[in-house]
Amino acid sequence: MTKQTRVEPRKLKGFRDYPPAECYGREQILATIRRHARLAGYQEIATPALEYADVLLGNGGEEADKEVYRFMDHGDRLVALRYDLTVPFARFVAEHQGTLPLPFKKFQTGEVWRGEKPQKGRYRQFCQADFDIVGADTALADAEVIGVLASALQELVPVPFTMALSHRIVLSALIRKLLPGLDAAREPQVLAALDKLGKIGPEKVVALLCEQPGVATEAAQALLALLQPSGPEGTPLDPIAEVLRGDAAGEQGLIRLRQVQAMVRLLAPSDRMRVQVDLSIARGLGYYTGIVFETFIDGLPGFGSISSGGRYNELVSRFSSQELAGVGGSIGVDRLLAGLEELGALPHALPAQLLIAVMGDEVAEFALQVLATVRAAGIAADIAVKSGKLAQQLKHADRLQIPWVAVIGSDEQAQSAVMLKHMATGKQNLVRVAEIVPALTIPS
Amino acid sequence: MTKQTRVEPRKLKGFRDYPPAECYGREQILATIRRHARLAGYQEIATPALEYADVLLGNGGEEADKEVYRFMDHGDRLVALRYDLTVPFARFVAEHQGTLPLPFKKFQTGEVWRGEKPQKGRYRQFCQADFDIVGADTALADAEVIGVLASALQELVPVPFTMALSHRIVLSALIRKLLPGLDAAREPQVLAALDKLGKIGPEKVVALLCEQPGVATEAAQALLALLQPSGPEGTPLDPIAEVLRGDAAGEQGLIRLRQVQAMVRLLAPSDRMRVQVDLSIARGLGYYTGIVFETFIDGLPGFGSISSGGRYNELVSRFSSQELAGVGGSIGVDRLLAGLEELGALPHALPAQLLIAVMGDEVAEFALQVLATVRAAGIAADIAVKSGKLAQQLKHADRLQIPWVAVIGSDEQAQSAVMLKHMATGKQNLVRVAEIVPALTIPS
Repeated sequence: MTKQTRVEPRKLKGFRDYPPAECYGREQILATIRRHARLAGYQEIATPALEYADVLLGNGGEEADKEVYRFMDHGDRLVALRYDLTVPFARFVAEHQGTLPLPFKKFQTGEVWRGEKPQKGRYRQFCQADFDIVGADTALADAEVIGVLASALQELVPVPFTMALSHRIVLSALIRKLLPGLDAAREPQVLAALDKLGKIGPEKVVALLCEQPGVATEAAQALLALLQPSGPEGTPLDPIAEVLRGDAAGEQGLIRLRQVQAMVRLLAPSDRMRVQVDLSIARGLGYYTGIVFETFIDGLPGFGSISSGGRYNELVSRFSSQELAGVGGSIGVDRLLAGLEELGALPHALPAQLLIAVMGDEVAEFALQVLATVRAAGIAADIAVKSGKLAQQLKHADRLQIPWVAVIGSDEQAQSAVMLKHMATGKQNLVRVAEIVPALTIPS
Repeated sequence: MTKQTRVEPRKLKGFRDYPPAECYGREQILATIRRHARLAGYQEIATPALEYADVLLGNGGEEADKEVYRFMDHGDRLVALRYDLTVPFARFVAEHQGTLPLPFKKFQTGEVWRGEKPQKGRYRQFCQADFDIVGADTALADAEVIGVLASALQELVPVPFTMALSHRIVLSALIRKLLPGLDAAREPQVLAALDKLGKIGPEKVVALLCEQPGVATEAAQALLALLQPSGPEGTPLDPIAEVLRGDAAGEQGLIRLRQVQAMVRLLAPSDRMRVQVDLSIARGLGYYTGIVFETFIDGLPGFGSISSGGRYNELVSRFSSQELAGVGGSIGVDRLLAGLEELGALPHALPAQLLIAVMGDEVAEFALQVLATVRAAGIAADIAVKSGKLAQQLKHADRLQIPWVAVIGSDEQAQSAVMLKHMATGKQNLVRVAEIVPALTIPS
């Protein structure tokens, strides 16, 4: 390498490293989610990080498009980094149609990128884990996707949490009835305003709603009052059924919402998880057409959703002449990681059970044989790759919280043994190579 | 979502999807590698896909720089997608210096991007798994990194393979001795020419070498003849020691090479893996300063390397006033996946053991209870989320190769049972809910 000016070691704003503790936590979360995916018959796929920009843009609405990282590549193609896993999946389904067994249940995990303003705990690159079913527009499909997310979250979240269900068609019908003066083309702005409820509170949402031409304050307040949940079941549905009487699509949506709520409870029963209806949930993304949902940790109000999704029956037809109904949901892996950190519930692991301290080059080969033997028994073992004084090796083990150190010098080698030291008690014994593994598993 | 023109579902040139079979194979490979990383005390980290361009450029040499995906972001910053995991790790080490326990052993897996010409089995986005040790310039550190890669590969590759070791300083010393007319500044071009040996053969490499001013054909031929391996030990080292006599750095390098070869054999003994010296291996990347290595599947000549790496003692000092010796290696996860596919050795899994066929909406809730019971026992189970005729459900199970189908209609529900059908034999029995799990584990 030619010598060059030093470069300051720094990251782009909004991007993060994962040091070992966080990385281990994230990998454990992913492993748990993947196990639930396999248990529920979801097949894993992967798609590229980069796509043609026209594939990604124009699906999630204006707000989403603004946040897409896009650029010209070396071949003058307008390309973009994916901002979710749903739109690339719709492209995948359209491209592989004919070879996919329908209904197709898929699992996918990967990084997504959004150029949004970085905030505490929110990054421009983050990891999602997505479950989707395409080829079935049924309550069972909605419940199956939400249910597998619920099962995984029950294992991952050690405290009470709530899955809050809503329905876009019910919301649209209510908006039409209660805000009759609103131009239908402005419904996305109303949904976007509702979507901010958790962050900015009801008064500011009412103010935002009133910015739309034809929306009166009382009407906006009445809408909001009707949507908000109260009690364990969530938003009271009888008054809403009253308002929607005669609106067939709205009534159908309400039935679906109740069915899905009951089904998710059957599929993923838990004392720690509430499944409630919350019609104030709108979901910002533009491609939803039915059930939508968000998930909140009860003890972390204001933290935001750790899992969300919904039904998107028109997304695949953006890429295909065939309509293909879809429903899906993501776990925000990095959001969940941040939540578990806040709860002090991050899983953590020791880097190794045993460190081999090598006292001189002449015993290195014997030390390597010992190392190979211990690892072959399935025990995580490290070796001090830099020779140094014993005190230094012990300090290294201490710093890494490795509980055992096997010291190997020429005396030990001559006896085909190691001096095995238990770090917490300081006790040490000469142990023959064949007896190291059992010695580690018995508490000192 | 507003209706829009249809977009053709297509991917960028050189990018690929992973349908379920390939994705499962890749995840199994990653899980195995991660298990070996933990067994050997490597701690996992992650870094962002995007970095400031000046962090990534100017480390790997001109060839590497040409292939880096770079662009202006929305804030007019020149940014780039990482082309390997080593340079971002050097940046990570410099940035986190002081908090890292040294020597630091790290594992990392992730996607990298290179704008190279796409070829069969080579993509512009691919997955790597990297092991590195910083803070120790010892034979033990070299051997420890190569050894953990070797152990993982022994589990992953079911056929004979070869780890081929070389040394940059030995190579440089030989080039100085045997090509005395060569301008020292042109050594990178000579290494790049040698690096092509496997692809283009010795005659074309000699021709490339002779393009350098001051290099005569006979000298180039003599160099190549000396470097090439012969026999199970690889490149004969005695004639090389002869040539290097008196060149202290070259002689030291040769000793290190022999030590590392012996140590890797001790650490990862196997009948299926050869560890040989092959001084014709140069490694294209510019940042190597000591041991380098490549790994080849013996039965796939011309397929290329599935794992490679080397020592880089000057890379961290690009970002830090402190020098920090490093050594590392990657498994090319996608290369290995392609190799296993070519060998017909890709692991594969059934999407589920059981499909629940639901005969009518009125039994859906009972079916969900059955599903929850089976999954709770750790058995992968799917449910037909779209109602349809039984023949259709059975066809779906058949297509997915799901071995068992539990048919649930109102008769079955009335008896708290399912009609359990074994797809291969066509046999079916009425089985009570509590007996489904044992019935699945006993062959019909």
